[in-house]
Amino acid sequence: MAIEGADLVRAAALMGAGIAMGLGAIGPGVGEGFAAGKACEAIGRNPKEAGLLTRTMLVGQAVSESTGIYSLVVALLLIFVV
Amino acid sequence: MAIEGADLVRAAALMGAGIAMGLGAIGPGVGEGFAAGKACEAIGRNPKEAGLLTRTMLVGQAVSESTGIYSLVVALLLIFVV
Amino acid sequence: MAIEGADLVRAAALMGAGIAMGLGAIGPGVGEGFAAGKACEAIGRNPKEAGLLTRTMLVGQAVSESTGIYSLVVALLLIFVV
Amino acid sequence: MAIEGADLVRAAALMGAGIAMGLGAIGPGVGEGFAAGKACEAIGRNPKEAGLLTRTMLVGQAVSESTGIYSLVVALLLIFVV
Amino acid sequence: MAIEGADLVRAAALMGAGIAMGLGAIGPGVGEGFAAGKACEAIGRNPKEAGLLTRTMLVGQAVSESTGIYSLVVALLLIFVV
Amino acid sequence: MAIEGADLVRAAALMGAGIAMGLGAIGPGVGEGFAAGKACEAIGRNPKEAGLLTRTMLVGQAVSESTGIYSLVVALLLIFVV
Amino acid sequence: MAIEGADLVRAAALMGAGIAMGLGAIGPGVGEGFAAGKACEAIGRNPKEAGLLTRTMLVGQAVSESTGIYSLVVALLLIFVV
Amino acid sequence: MAIEGADLVRAAALMGAGIAMGLGAIGPGVGEGFAAGKACEAIGRNPKEAGLLTRTMLVGQAVSESTGIYSLVVALLLIFVV
Amino acid sequence: MAIEGADLVRAAALMGAGIAMGLGAIGPGVGEGFAAGKACEAIGRNPKEAGLLTRTMLVGQAVSESTGIYSLVVALLLIFVV
Amino acid sequence: MAIEGADLVRAAALMGAGIAMGLGAIGPGVGEGFAAGKACEAIGRNPKEAGLLTRTMLVGQAVSESTGIYSLVVALLLIFVV
Amino acid sequence: MAIEGADLVRAAALMGAGIAMGLGAIGPGVGEGFAAGKACEAIGRNPKEAGLLTRTMLVGQAVSESTGIYSLVVALLLIFVV
Amino acid sequence: MAIEGADLVRAAALMGAGIAMGLGAIGPGVGEGFAAGKACEAIGRNPKEAGLLTRTMLVGQAVSESTGIYSLVVALLLIFVV
Amino acid sequence: MAIEGADLVRAAALMGAGIAMGLGAIGPGVGEGFAAGKACEAIGRNPKEAGLLTRTMLVGQAVSESTGIYSLVVALLLIFVV
Amino acid sequence: MAIEGADLVRAAALMGAGIAMGLGAIGPGVGEGFAAGKACEAIGRNPKEAGLLTRTMLVGQAVSESTGIYSLVVALLLIFVV
Repeated sequence: MAIEGADLVRAAALMGAGIAMGLGAIGPGVGEGFAAGKACEAIGRNPKEAGLLTRTMLVGQAVSESTGIYSLVVALLLIFVV
Repeated sequence: MAIEGADLVRAAALMGAGIAMGLGAIGPGVGEGFAAGKACEAIGRNPKEAGLLTRTMLVGQAVSESTGIYSLVVALLLIFVV
Repeated sequence: MAIEGADLVRAAALMGAGIAMGLGAIGPGVGEGFAAGKACEAIGRNPKEAGLLTRTMLVGQAVSESTGIYSLVVALLLIFVV
Repeated sequence: MAIEGADLVRAAALMGAGIAMGLGAIGPGVGEGFAAGKACEAIGRNPKEAGLLTRTMLVGQAVSESTGIYSLVVALLLIFVV
Repeated sequence: MAIEGADLVRAAALMGAGIAMGLGAIGPGVGEGFAAGKACEAIGRNPKEAGLLTRTMLVGQAVSESTGIYSLVVALLLIFVV
Repeated sequence: MAIEGADLVRAAALMGAGIAMGLGAIGPGVGEGFAAGKACEAIGRNPKEAGLLTRTMLVGQAVSESTGIYSLVVALLLIFVV
Repeated sequence: MAIEGADLVRAAALMGAGIAMGLGAIGPGVGEGFAAGKACEAIGRNPKEAGLLTRTMLVGQAVSESTGIYSLVVALLLIFVV
Repeated sequence: MAIEGADLVRAAALMGAGIAMGLGAIGPGVGEGFAAGKACEAIGRNPKEAGLLTRTMLVGQAVSESTGIYSLVVALLLIFVV
Repeated sequence: MAIEGADLVRAAALMGAGIAMGLGAIGPGVGEGFAAGKACEAIGRNPKEAGLLTRTMLVGQAVSESTGIYSLVVALLLIFVV
Repeated sequence: MAIEGADLVRAAALMGAGIAMGLGAIGPGVGEGFAAGKACEAIGRNPKEAGLLTRTMLVGQAVSESTGIYSLVVALLLIFVV
Repeated sequence: MAIEGADLVRAAALMGAGIAMGLGAIGPGVGEGFAAGKACEAIGRNPKEAGLLTRTMLVGQAVSESTGIYSLVVALLLIFVV
Repeated sequence: MAIEGADLVRAAALMGAGIAMGLGAIGPGVGEGFAAGKACEAIGRNPKEAGLLTRTMLVGQAVSESTGIYSLVVALLLIFVV
Repeated sequence: MAIEGADLVRAAALMGAGIAMGLGAIGPGVGEGFAAGKACEAIGRNPKEAGLLTRTMLVGQAVSESTGIYSLVVALLLIFVV
Repeated sequence: MAIEGADLVRAAALMGAGIAMGLGAIGPGVGEGFAAGKACEAIGRNPKEAGLLTRTMLVGQAVSESTGIYSLVVALLLIFVV
């Protein structure tokens, strides 16, 4: 077994990248879907405000997306930089 | 056991790819299904706005899909690039 | 124990494929079922719009299905390509 | 212990097949049952549209079933092809 | 310890069979019970349509059952064929 | 340690039997209880249809029971046949 | 360490018995309690049908109990027969 | 380390007893509490039927208790008989 | 390491006692709290029946408590008798 | 490594004490909080019965507390007596 | 590795302390927050009884707190006394 | 490997500190957020009592916070004192 | 393997830091989002009190944030001080 | 195996970074999505206050985001500084 320390570090980084992105996609995925569903519900009741509601939905989702993007950034750092 | 370090790294990357994509499909799958269900509910109440609602649903789902795509990207990176 | 590194890599890839597809089927399965249920509910209330609702349901499910397909793609890559 | 690499690979494949099918049956099973329940509820309210509702239910379930079938395919690949 | 590779493969297959059937029974069991409960609720409200509702329930449950049967198939394959 | 391969296989089979039956009893148990509760609720509202509702409940539970029986079959196979 | 293969098999059987009965008691316990609660609710609304409702509850619980009994059977087999 | 096979078997039995009773107490505990809560709710609405409701609650709980008792039996068998 | 078999058995028994009591306290604790909450709700609506409701609550909780007591018994057996 | 059997037993006992008390605090904590919340709700509707309701809440919580106390007892036994 | 038995015991005690306090804070934290929320809801409806409701909330929370305190006691015992 | 016993103890203490604080932040975080949300709801209905409601919310949150603080204390003890 | 005790301690501290912050972000994140959602709901009903509601929301979130900050503090201590 | 202590520390840090960011993205993602959904619902009812509501939503999300940012900070520290 010719395993050196750098290999162990790299293996941990790659496994960590998978965990970070996998878990990190659960929260935003569920949350943004909830927002989209509620926006559809609201537009169905009040279609005159569709533009306003779509904009609010997108702003809210964009903030919720941020933690997903952080996860992506951490995963990419663990893959490429480390 | 002729295992070298590069093999350990690769094994960790491939296992990590499976975890990333597997976990990363839970959130968007549930969230987008919720959005689709709510859109159907809204169209059932207000069918005149079906086009508007379908568009909103698709926009909302597209944002929710993004974390699933990040997971795919990370999984593919772990499989092919690493 | 004549285990070589390539075997460890392959074993990790196959185990990862099982995890990716198994976990990746949970989210879309639940989400699309929710969408189908809500579509039935909506058609029961407003059967005149059945075609419109079925179409919306299918579009919404198709997007939700995407993460399940990503999981399938990753699993197949892990089985055949790696 | 006369374990060779091919055995480890095969063991991982078979264990992975079990995990893929086991987890992959949770989502569609729950989701399709929800759809069936909602269809019964809708038919109870509006029995004249029973054919339409049953058809919608089956279409919706068929899409939801797909991830279960992907899991079956991956499990069979892991058992027979690998 | 006179463990050979074929034994390890067989042990993994049998353990995998248990996992596949055990997990695979959760989803259909919950989902079909939900469908049965909703069908009873609907028949209680509209008993004239009992035949129609029972038929819908059974069709919906049959589709939901499919993933449970896939799990059984995979478990039997892992026990007898592998 | 005079452990032979056949012992490892048998140990895995017996542990797998326990897992299969244990997990496999969760889904049907919850689902059938839900069906029974809903049937009681429906009979309380519409006691004239008690026979019809009890029959529907039993039919629905019988289908839901099937995955529990599959688990039992797999567990018994793992105990006695393997 | 004078551990023989038969001991490993027996240890796995006993541990498996504990897992089978422990997990197998969760589903029926929750499901039957739900049925009992719903029956009480229904009797509170319609006490004239108490006998009918109690009978329905018991029939429904008996079916739900079956998976718990399967678990008991598997556990006892693992303890005494194996 | 003078560990013999019989010790390993006994250790597995005792650990299994703890798992069986611990997990086995979750389901009945939650289910029976639900039944008790619903019975209180029903008596609060219809106090004239308190005796009937208490009796129904106890019958329903007794059935739900059964899986808890099975767990106790299995745990005691694992402690004293094995 | 002068570990004998009896020590391993005792260690497993004590660890099992902790698991049995820890898990076994979850179900009754949640269930009885639910019953207590529902009893308070019922008394708030119908304070004249407070004695009857408190008695029903206590009877229902006592049954629910039983699995917690079984867990205690098993834990004490694992600590003192084994 | 001068680890003797008694040390292993003691380590298992202390780890078990932590698990018993940690898990054992979840159920009563959630349940009693539910009871307290429902009591506040009931007093808000019917403040004249505040004394009665507080008393009922405390009695119900006391029973629910019992499993938490059992956990404490088992944890203390595992720390001091074993 | 100059690890003695006393070190293993101490390590298990400290790890157990962390588990006891970490898990033990989940239940009371959720439960007491539920009580606080319900008290705010009740005061918003019936602000004249604010003193009474706050007192009831605090009494109910104090009982719910008890299991958190038991966890603290066990954790401190595991840190300082053992 | 020049690992001494004191290092193992310290490692367990630090890992335990992370677990204690990580798990211990879940309960209060969720519970206090629930309380804050309910307080906002109540103020929205009855804004004249905003001061009273904010005070009640803070008192209730303070009690709920206590288990979080216990976790912090235990974590700090495990880091600095042990 | 030139691993010394100090390295093991440091590795445990860093892994513990990741666990503490990861788990510690779940509770406050969910709880504060609930508070924010409820505040939006309340402002939508009673927009004249927006300032008051935003202030209450922020105060409530600030308290809920505290456990997240404790987690950060513990994680930073584990990274920099230990 | 030429693994040194510094490598183990670094591997733990990178794995910890993945866990911290992965878990830390769940809570804010779900919570912020809930806030966004509730804001859309409120705007749909009261579109005149859209600016006010969007501002409240963003403030509430910003606070909820904070724990996600803490997780990012901890993950980056574990990657770059440690």
